[in-house]
Amino acid sequence: MGFSSRLEGYTGRVREVLESAGVDVGDEIEITIGEHEKIKGVLMSRYELADPEYIVVKLPNGYNIGVRFRENIQVRKLLEEVKKPAFRPPEKARPIPGLPRVTIVGTGGTIASRIDYRTGAVRPVLTAEDLLSIIPELASIANLDASILFSIFSEDMTPNEWSMMATRVDEYIRRGVDGVVIAHGTDTMGYSAAALSFALQKPPIPIVFVGAQRSSDRPSSDSATNLIAAVKVAGYAPFAEVCVAMHDNHSDEVIAIHRGTRVRKNHTSSRDAFKSINTEPIAFYKNGEIYVNRKDLNNRGSNQYIFNPKFSDKAVLLKFFPGMSHEILEDIWMKGYRGIIIEGSGLGHVARRLIPTLEKILKDGVFIGMTSQCMYGRVNMRVYSTGRDLLKIGVTPLDDMLPETAYVKLSWVLAQTTEIEEIKNLMLTPLAGEIGERSIP
Amino acid sequence: MGFSSRLEGYTGRVREVLESAGVDVGDEIEITIGEHEKIKGVLMSRYELADPEYIVVKLPNGYNIGVRFRENIQVRKLLEEVKKPAFRPPEKARPIPGLPRVTIVGTGGTIASRIDYRTGAVRPVLTAEDLLSIIPELASIANLDASILFSIFSEDMTPNEWSMMATRVDEYIRRGVDGVVIAHGTDTMGYSAAALSFALQKPPIPIVFVGAQRSSDRPSSDSATNLIAAVKVAGYAPFAEVCVAMHDNHSDEVIAIHRGTRVRKNHTSSRDAFKSINTEPIAFYKNGEIYVNRKDLNNRGSNQYIFNPKFSDKAVLLKFFPGMSHEILEDIWMKGYRGIIIEGSGLGHVARRLIPTLEKILKDGVFIGMTSQCMYGRVNMRVYSTGRDLLKIGVTPLDDMLPETAYVKLSWVLAQTTEIEEIKNLMLTPLAGEIGERSIP
Repeated sequence: MGFSSRLEGYTGRVREVLESAGVDVGDEIEITIGEHEKIKGVLMSRYELADPEYIVVKLPNGYNIGVRFRENIQVRKLLEEVKKPAFRPPEKARPIPGLPRVTIVGTGGTIASRIDYRTGAVRPVLTAEDLLSIIPELASIANLDASILFSIFSEDMTPNEWSMMATRVDEYIRRGVDGVVIAHGTDTMGYSAAALSFALQKPPIPIVFVGAQRSSDRPSSDSATNLIAAVKVAGYAPFAEVCVAMHDNHSDEVIAIHRGTRVRKNHTSSRDAFKSINTEPIAFYKNGEIYVNRKDLNNRGSNQYIFNPKFSDKAVLLKFFPGMSHEILEDIWMKGYRGIIIEGSGLGHVARRLIPTLEKILKDGVFIGMTSQCMYGRVNMRVYSTGRDLLKIGVTPLDDMLPETAYVKLSWVLAQTTEIEEIKNLMLTPLAGEIGERSIP
Repeated sequence: MGFSSRLEGYTGRVREVLESAGVDVGDEIEITIGEHEKIKGVLMSRYELADPEYIVVKLPNGYNIGVRFRENIQVRKLLEEVKKPAFRPPEKARPIPGLPRVTIVGTGGTIASRIDYRTGAVRPVLTAEDLLSIIPELASIANLDASILFSIFSEDMTPNEWSMMATRVDEYIRRGVDGVVIAHGTDTMGYSAAALSFALQKPPIPIVFVGAQRSSDRPSSDSATNLIAAVKVAGYAPFAEVCVAMHDNHSDEVIAIHRGTRVRKNHTSSRDAFKSINTEPIAFYKNGEIYVNRKDLNNRGSNQYIFNPKFSDKAVLLKFFPGMSHEILEDIWMKGYRGIIIEGSGLGHVARRLIPTLEKILKDGVFIGMTSQCMYGRVNMRVYSTGRDLLKIGVTPLDDMLPETAYVKLSWVLAQTTEIEEIKNLMLTPLAGEIGERSIP
């Protein structure tokens, strides 16, 4: 994760003190300030952008602190042997008869990784044995199998990774597992969950995305509770939906299970960042139990499964803003994109000055769908004349679909057909609970 | 609003029935279906996209219904004289000594308009006399003055309209009014409120944006209550902030007063669509009283007022999405934009494949600022290596600033200076409460 394993980030007086103490990044050290203050912890790499006058130390509670350099500072290396964290060697898990078979697919992100205290580096931990050594409870919930599909930051996911994930999950479905858990970075987990909702429609088993907002070396980590809930849902839920399992609130007690097409990361850092938008979660997990929250779900064992993992990269998501120029639309059109999801204002509007450009693009056979940057509620383009004029030129109103989900769906639809009427028709047909629910008032 | 004043929207059998009854759009009519069912109301224009088999009638309660054509339908014109809505001629208001002077500036939108029952057309109603005839309570709150600056849909606002609004408000400030209310369409009211927050810093009087989610001819309209609260805040609030007055919840009782740089339209249609993000409203209005909610506000009578109404149109707001290509960034750069606000993922990320393009653009002296599409929380680009790499090439992290506010602020900053370090510095300096508050956990 960009950390150096040497002192190279440190410079000047700070570097001198560390070198003369004979310590290196990853060592347990004790810093003495003046006569009384002592700080113990692991010396961390200095970020390139941190103040050069600070020494970064990871405390035993998992938090990093920066100790400012002062003349009266002393650094001492502690004995490694004494301080090495106890880490029992993982045992090979034996299948327990009667438990469901759940497969965990690692794709990257905070949940599928563990920070190495000694270097600050993050390493993947997704063998079943690793997981069981960290979260022993999992062994009593399911017979686990785990593998790493890839290990990338979720901001680097593209439609190509969505296809790879869907294809891998389909393999496990055909092997007869009882549920699949996908460990995923949280940044774009909502997009990926929507993608698999369209690629794996009405699957016979639950497909549960899970992430963590805090890494597992922090006391406030949500890794374990989220993962336990995800495995439970994958193995036992009566519904077979593509969904996301994340903290419902600030406590560790309740995990919300969100529909893959209805969920959004709505906070940069809090543990309950994921929210169902315009609907309720499909279920909750609490104290080992799954509480199903609605009736219109695809049942486990469904025989209507449709697998179609193709995605196009010819779709664009574009947010309207007051000074938006028609040039931005023209450029997208010129680049050969075949569909545009607009995050319009209010009930589904853009500036009237953009209408002639939109009309030209639509006449060229490009799909343009309208969602709202309000996020909550649904577009209604019959109320004001701007909306009516946009309808008249052929903009498709996408009801209460999330803009992000609309973009993912369009990426999927464009890989199924090049026929504009069929594209419109598919975009307006609910395929995975993505459209047409009653909005929360 | 795009309505025709004639029958031209109606076709076929429906048109024949209407013509043979001698009725026109705007007439009071009675439709008899079979022997028993009667519907009375005003004949409305048919939307271009409505089903051609329906007759659209506005009922006395303000709602439109569509009456489906059937063979046993009869249409009759009612006498106009009898049905004309009683509308008392507005009286010229006389100033009441001791009341504050509040000026209402009309810019368009639902609140500054009234649907003409007879034609369906929307007409502006922003003389003080019109307003007092609709909301007589206002006369006892303030000595009102009202004028129409322009009358456009808020989706058509641009940085140019922001300048015009700011300049008009400054004129009223110099004339010594006690408060200004700006009636504005809700779609982009958040953007405009942010704009005036930067153009009119630390003003001596409150500047209160107000809108309506439901037009004043509907029983559920929020026009009157929002406007009363706005006038009250403009005339009496101890703080002098650019703010937005809108329903706080579904009841008519509480109006939230949001800071102009912190507010967002978060629902397409509900009356409590406007929310303060990452902070609390600065005040509430209830039962005629203003309840101030925080202490760090600019005081009425402030002598630190800075007026600067210039905005650049060389800023862009761009939302990151998983399939985003570097080409979109290149095109924006080629078009000569001087600043880009990115709505990144999570703590402030984009795909790593975009970094070389961003670096090239930054080296050319274009400002790139990072916000989060999570909406809640703050960016923190030191946690993951993607963020650190973006910092290293010179992307500026904008803390907890709303993406929309960041875009507006950048439009303002780019009109103040062309010096990149000064642009960065201004973007990171809190000017109007737009940055650096503790986020709601």
